[in-house]
Amino acid sequence: MSLLVTGTIAIDTIKTPHGISEDCLGGAAVYFSMAASFFSPVRLVGVVGDDFSFNLAEVFAGRDVDLTGMETRAQSKTFRWTGLYHENMDDRTTERTELNVLAEAPPKVPEAFKDSEYVFLANTAPAIQLGLLEQVEKPTFVAADTMNLWIQNHLTDLKTLLKKIDCLIINEDEVRMLADEFNLIIAARKILDMGMNLIVIKKGESGSILCNANGDIFILPAYPADEVKDPTGAGDCFAGGLMGYLAKSGKTDFETLKTAIAFGTVVASFAITDFSLNGLASTNRANIDKRLDMLRNTTRF
Amino acid sequence: MSLLVTGTIAIDTIKTPHGISEDCLGGAAVYFSMAASFFSPVRLVGVVGDDFSFNLAEVFAGRDVDLTGMETRAQSKTFRWTGLYHENMDDRTTERTELNVLAEAPPKVPEAFKDSEYVFLANTAPAIQLGLLEQVEKPTFVAADTMNLWIQNHLTDLKTLLKKIDCLIINEDEVRMLADEFNLIIAARKILDMGMNLIVIKKGESGSILCNANGDIFILPAYPADEVKDPTGAGDCFAGGLMGYLAKSGKTDFETLKTAIAFGTVVASFAITDFSLNGLASTNRANIDKRLDMLRNTTRF
Repeated sequence: MSLLVTGTIAIDTIKTPHGISEDCLGGAAVYFSMAASFFSPVRLVGVVGDDFSFNLAEVFAGRDVDLTGMETRAQSKTFRWTGLYHENMDDRTTERTELNVLAEAPPKVPEAFKDSEYVFLANTAPAIQLGLLEQVEKPTFVAADTMNLWIQNHLTDLKTLLKKIDCLIINEDEVRMLADEFNLIIAARKILDMGMNLIVIKKGESGSILCNANGDIFILPAYPADEVKDPTGAGDCFAGGLMGYLAKSGKTDFETLKTAIAFGTVVASFAITDFSLNGLASTNRANIDKRLDMLRNTTRF
Repeated sequence: MSLLVTGTIAIDTIKTPHGISEDCLGGAAVYFSMAASFFSPVRLVGVVGDDFSFNLAEVFAGRDVDLTGMETRAQSKTFRWTGLYHENMDDRTTERTELNVLAEAPPKVPEAFKDSEYVFLANTAPAIQLGLLEQVEKPTFVAADTMNLWIQNHLTDLKTLLKKIDCLIINEDEVRMLADEFNLIIAARKILDMGMNLIVIKKGESGSILCNANGDIFILPAYPADEVKDPTGAGDCFAGGLMGYLAKSGKTDFETLKTAIAFGTVVASFAITDFSLNGLASTNRANIDKRLDMLRNTTRF
């Protein structure tokens, strides 16, 4: 099935206890696309400025990532983000955000992408996510990410969005904020009451939780990583592995979702081993499958 | 196999967002004993003062908990602890600690308990744990708990203890402190190098991790509890379920340890549903087995 992602293409500067990576390629749509491409073709929609010096066709060489939806806007500047990771590698401080082209009109979904069946709306203002989603004719399965900023300041738009998607994929802190409830199981139920059928709670090094509106729950620990150099994009890689596997399977029943979450977990575990996209770029599907078996053995009793 | 626990018997005052329980029964050895008693007979060693008004024989009625090792010391006062749980129910502040009888000579292991095969040394000064362990003639499997206070101020004693036990069962914050390392997998390896063969890392609502010196890893999420009234003693109940199941099985291979950890997880999930020992007291082995199956289904893919 076709898989569309809308989201940022960024130039990141990342500081971790393991080193600094200046002006490297980043952005949710980029991480997502590379992660999903291990499983399925991907259609990318995003916008950069004319200062963008990376060649995404080269970055994605050998992968089925369609860049028709990537707009390079003249006289605009690419979105830039500078983040500092703390010693625990889970907490980070955003040192600087330059919205640049993201403060302008969003990109459009190209005609050729309008029949996309699986859609991931990476984190941005919910009004923009809604606008992008409206351009897709008859999506089969729509997942979205969001963040504290939109929960605090754009809650009405966000609640409109939640009624139009199938699955929300967000961090545990955002779950607690959106539900106004600390207990994650109760919070998940409160959020499911807002509209969609599925929620995936990302808990960083503690894994993830999937809940559906029927009360089914799946909990998976993170892969036990002893090599974490740069967690940037881990959540988008998780979503990419998850959505890529679903699009490939063409199914979204609970059992398929469980396996999809396991693949998302494993793909993210490769992404964090190196700066920017290097961790993902240097692995392959055979390694991913092998690590999936290890994760299964590590969690089965 | 026989199972011995040494540890505190306490009078607790517990404040949570769900209410206050004043002067209720608590203490690591008490929680552990009740949890372990679902699986195995338990021998309890602990000391109280003459102000102790609870009748442990009644508390443990119908359970095989041998109180021969419980000393009531005249003209001493029982250990008292007052704790305040924060909204997230994982973090707590100790408002008051009255060591009382714990500041005096520790209790002795009775003659009839010296042949104990499985031993759990609940949290106290490592020198006291060592003194108690020395009174057991030929233990088969020894597990111990410890805390930040001993890691910071009694590290030499603690490192002596770690060479004499088989399994350390501690919180993730203590793991990081003891290993001086944030990554839990690396930290576990560093601690295993200090002597024992097994470490179990307790992560509260995020479950637990078991590592052995061969590099085997087992990770289990917590049971998805939507009813948390009082987390006091959850860690000791986890250890109680774990050790009770091991003592009952008479085996400590990795597969048996995995199941033991799952039982510890489930028993703890009942303990936190009510104040003091009420959550444990109102369940039974059939409920525990049922919840174990649910936990298995919730984590399997």
